[in-house]
Order: sequence, then structure tokens, then C-alpha cells
Amino acid sequence: MTGNKKRIRIRDIADHLDVSTATVSRALNPNTEHMIRKEVVAGIKDAARELGYIPSPIATALRTDRTYTVGVAVPDILNPVFPPIINGIQDHLHQNGYLTLIVNTNNDQRVALDEIRRLITRQVDGFILANAFLDDISVRECLLREIPMVLVNRSIKNGNLVHQVLSDDEFGIELAINHLAELGHVRLLHLAGPPNILHGKQRLKIFRQLCRKNKIQDEYMVMDAFSIDAGARGAQQFLQQQSKATAILAGNDLMAVGAMDTLRNAGVSVPEEISVVGFNDMPLSDMLRPALTTISIPHMEFGNQAARLLLQVIESPDISRQLVLLTPKLVIRESTAKCRSR
Amino acid sequence: MTGNKKRIRIRDIADHLDVSTATVSRALNPNTEHMIRKEVVAGIKDAARELGYIPSPIATALRTDRTYTVGVAVPDILNPVFPPIINGIQDHLHQNGYLTLIVNTNNDQRVALDEIRRLITRQVDGFILANAFLDDISVRECLLREIPMVLVNRSIKNGNLVHQVLSDDEFGIELAINHLAELGHVRLLHLAGPPNILHGKQRLKIFRQLCRKNKIQDEYMVMDAFSIDAGARGAQQFLQQQSKATAILAGNDLMAVGAMDTLRNAGVSVPEEISVVGFNDMPLSDMLRPALTTISIPHMEFGNQAARLLLQVIESPDISRQLVLLTPKLVIRESTAKCRSR
Repeated sequence: MTGNKKRIRIRDIADHLDVSTATVSRALNPNTEHMIRKEVVAGIKDAARELGYIPSPIATALRTDRTYTVGVAVPDILNPVFPPIINGIQDHLHQNGYLTLIVNTNNDQRVALDEIRRLITRQVDGFILANAFLDDISVRECLLREIPMVLVNRSIKNGNLVHQVLSDDEFGIELAINHLAELGHVRLLHLAGPPNILHGKQRLKIFRQLCRKNKIQDEYMVMDAFSIDAGARGAQQFLQQQSKATAILAGNDLMAVGAMDTLRNAGVSVPEEISVVGFNDMPLSDMLRPALTTISIPHMEFGNQAARLLLQVIESPDISRQLVLLTPKLVIRESTAKCRSR
Repeated sequence: MTGNKKRIRIRDIADHLDVSTATVSRALNPNTEHMIRKEVVAGIKDAARELGYIPSPIATALRTDRTYTVGVAVPDILNPVFPPIINGIQDHLHQNGYLTLIVNTNNDQRVALDEIRRLITRQVDGFILANAFLDDISVRECLLREIPMVLVNRSIKNGNLVHQVLSDDEFGIELAINHLAELGHVRLLHLAGPPNILHGKQRLKIFRQLCRKNKIQDEYMVMDAFSIDAGARGAQQFLQQQSKATAILAGNDLMAVGAMDTLRNAGVSVPEEISVVGFNDMPLSDMLRPALTTISIPHMEFGNQAARLLLQVIESPDISRQLVLLTPKLVIRESTAKCRSR
């Protein structure tokens, strides 16, 4: 690309420190650095950095069969749940000498496929995908090409084909419904996310089952996005229909934010007249007004577990398919209150 | 990496559509696709996608001298201002056929340098860096290697060495101080960010100048991060010192959030007893409690302009250094009110 000064090689570092090239080579290879004393590894890495050593990706690949790079795809970088997932992934990968390359797919399957293919040509060692649709062309492509892959947060219809790190949605919805039932709410409205995404379809299904089981009157609306705007539109419709529901269980926190905003603008007070529960416990949800009662998902840990699992898969591609289910928690704040029937 | 099926080539696409290989080749090259009719380009791209064509990066590089990939570094993916910047960058790059590869540097110069070097070996066409320190080793490295680069949001000490897209901080601070002065505040506290980052140093300097000019009593604390936690610690110190300031101008919105939280927990009401102004207008700042008065920076446009500028630089590496300054706006919400002297 540019004015290449003399390329720094292993030999130069070895000469600079007066050690053998084998030592330098081992110290700079994540697979073998444990063979060298820690202080020596640190010294060699410092020298490599100072001298401006850049490992040749081809040499590295030949030596280790790896590029030590993982591709991560998120569907919507503006949704506050994805940055903590990215952070959790990166923390673990960085500790293990891996570079994390992030792409944002804008919830568009064609964009995602294009980006993932372009990452494949750069030979990433595997993918962590947080952007799966129930029927997903990129996941199909990675399966076909047998590329190590972990799905996190979202998954595909045939989840048993892939490694997955997901939240226990059934338990989460149960926590929310029980909380509202204890407050005396017997008519609930669920703002569901898009039915082509796991959380959209699954949370709605569980909501309906649990309402039936608990003799709670269930209403629902299926929205086209997990966004503030979708939540606002849902609440608008709710007001126009003069629904008798006294509590709204939003498909995620952004939808809850949009719904609360619309209700406030219409002069309906939360939680006095309507209770609202979110899903995720995204950053800042405790600072909202009113602070949001929600189902907390450990997103940082999501990322961490996904990274751990992917490194296992890269190491042993044939391990049995794993599903890691993380348990959510109910966080009671200010957006829910005792039902006063309307 | 994996079970390679037969590799799809330009020839296969041409045969499939019964057109010439030259046509396919031109349609798939962003530099030449304008030579072919739009509908034909669309048809060829669809076929390429269907057949699973992956352009060979080496062939592409030979043909166009480009990899059509840009590296983007952000310092802290958990800070809500960076996702909109990323989005703005990606929107423009995607429209121009570029892949955006994002890395998160955790505000660590060594991590950043390592990640940027690894991206250089993958031959990105250039970088957009949102993570610059005033003295920044990665920026130095890119300058040395003459790699096309644009700094966005933050910059280095010798800004005239680089292309920059920044906010007009002087104007922003002036908007904040004038707003508070109009409300009758004559003693202000500034929670400044770290002095090794442009916004930390610059906003403090301007704050002190403008206070002096307007005969406002200025206090300030220099914090070690632009975070909720740093804002909380600043407010703690403010309370302990029994400062006489009646308004806090936070270095950014996260610091304002932390400060407001600490004040609330100490029973000091915002804005009745203390006014608080943020900086950025990050997503959700309008949904906080109280909703945050802040200086709004157009982050999406930041990203857009940075991407535009980088493509210019990639096209013509020798164009004059540009500084694009975007004008901030004052957004008055609920966290500021008339001064009642304490």
C-alpha cells in the first residue's frame, strides 16, 4: 500500500535482544509462548513493538494454521445491547491473542452475506454472529463451508445445527408475567418483535402460553422492528384501540422506551395508569424516567461465553453442538406498580 | 480454512448469464461498474451472490490497486456516541462498495497499535480513527507509513498533520456558558475529561477563557475518564468540598449522568438546586430523568463526513490537509433551571 521501509523480521528482533530466533518465534506465537518465561515473552513483545515488527499473515498461517482473527457481526450497532456483547467477546479474544473484527449488518441479510464473504476471503478463523434471522443465508453459508461459528443472542430455526449462546427467554417472560400478576394485573399487552427473529417469535409464543396457564387475558401486537420507533407505534395503536390492558410487556427495552414516551406525550402516566416492563436491561435503562423495570440479560457474559465457545470450536471443530443458556433476572424499578383497574 | 467446494470464477458467472467475462468483470469492479448499464450490473451482482462468487482479494488488488476495505477504530464501544459515528461511516462506505472493519481499542494505545498493525497486514485502503490521544502512537505509525487516514471526533496535538472531522468545541462551550449565564448562574464547575485527549484539554481551556471573559467564577476538576463513574466521583468531590457552584458543565453526557445520579442519591435535586449540562446529546439523553440539557453534536454526520473525506484521500493522497468543523447546538431540556443562590 505504501512506502515500505525495511521490513522488520524475527531475525532483527533476535539480534536486537541477543536471543535465538527460535525463542523470538515461540514468544510471538500464541500457541507456543507458554514455553518461554513470562518476562522474556514480555521483553520480546516490547522489542517487537518498538522495532515495528508486523507478523506476516502468510508465515503466521503456515506456522500455526491460524490467522488469529475472528469476525463478529452485529445487526444494529445503535441498539445499546450490542456494545456490551462486543466488549465481552473482545475481552476474551484479546486475552487469547485474537483480533476481533466487527461488522454491522443493519439487519439486512444481503449486506451481512456480503460482509461475511469478504471476511472469509481474509481468512478469519471463525465467526460469532449476533445477527441471525430464523432463516439466515449467512449462517447457511458458514455451515456449508464448515467455518467455525457461534451464534449469540439470536439463533436460527434449526438451532441444533449450530453452537448457540442464548438467554432463557421462557424463564425471562415468566419472571415478567409473575411480577405483573403479583401487582394485580390481569390484562397484559405484549409488543412483540419481528417474527423472523428468534426473540420476536419465541417471546410471543411463551407469553401466550403463560398467560393462558395463569388465566391472564393476553393481547399482543407484532411489530416490524426491535426499535424505539416500533414501541412508539405500538403504544399509539394501543391508545387508539382503547385496549383494556393495564400493563405492557415490551419485546425489548428500546420498544419500552418508545412506548413510555408515547404514553407520556398522550398524558397517560407510567406506572400510575399503565405499567411497562422491558427486556434486556440495556445500559442507561436505570437512568430513564421512570427507571425501567426489566428482565436483565448479562450481555457482557453473553459475549464472553460466545468467545470461549468459539475458541473451543476452532480447536476441535468436531465437538458436539452446544447450547449455552444464560439465566435472566427480574430488575424491579419504577415503571411498574399495583394495578388500578382503568 | 475449510472444505473448499469448486471456486466460482468470473467465467462461471459469464456463462451462467451468457454475457462476456469483460462485462462481468467491469460490473463487479466499483471503479468500472459505471461503464455498464445499471440493470445489467444488478443482474450480474445477483448472479454472483447466488452462485457464491467471492472475489479473490489478490486479483481485486491487482485489478484495482484497492482492497475496498476501511479500518475504523473506536476507543470505547460502550460510550453511546460511537455507535452513531460508526453508523454514519458505514452508510457512506457501503454505498461506495467498501467494507467497514471496526476495532475497539479500549482507550489503550498499545491495543490500538496492535490492532491497526494487524489491519495493515490485511491491506486496508485507509483508516478512520475515532480514538486518537493528543500524542498517539498509532497515528504516528500511519503517518510514517503514509496510509490514508482521517481522524474523527478526537485529534492529535499537531492537528495540521492530519485530516480531521471535529466539533467546534469553542462554540459548544460558549453555548453552554451563555445558557447558564442567562439563567443567572455566576459560579460554574467544569468536570473536565482526561488532559491527554483533545476534548479533555480543549474544553477546559475554553471554559476557563470564556468564564474569565464573562466574569463568571470558574471551578474545575480534571477527571481520568469520560465515563459515568468519573462523573459520579466528580460530583462526590463537589459535595465534599461544599463548592459554591450552582451549575455543573460536564465534559460529556456520561459524566453528566454519573453526576446527576450522585447528586440525586445525596438528596440534592437537579435542576432545582444544581443545574447540569452535558456535551454530545448521546442517544437516550432525552429519556433520562431529568432529561439532559446538552450540547448536541451530529455524530451520524461526523461519521458520514469522515468517510467522504477518507475516500477523497484514498483517491488523491496528496490533497491539502482538511479540517471539517461541525457546529454543535444547544438542546435545552430539564436538567437546567434559573439559579437560586445556595
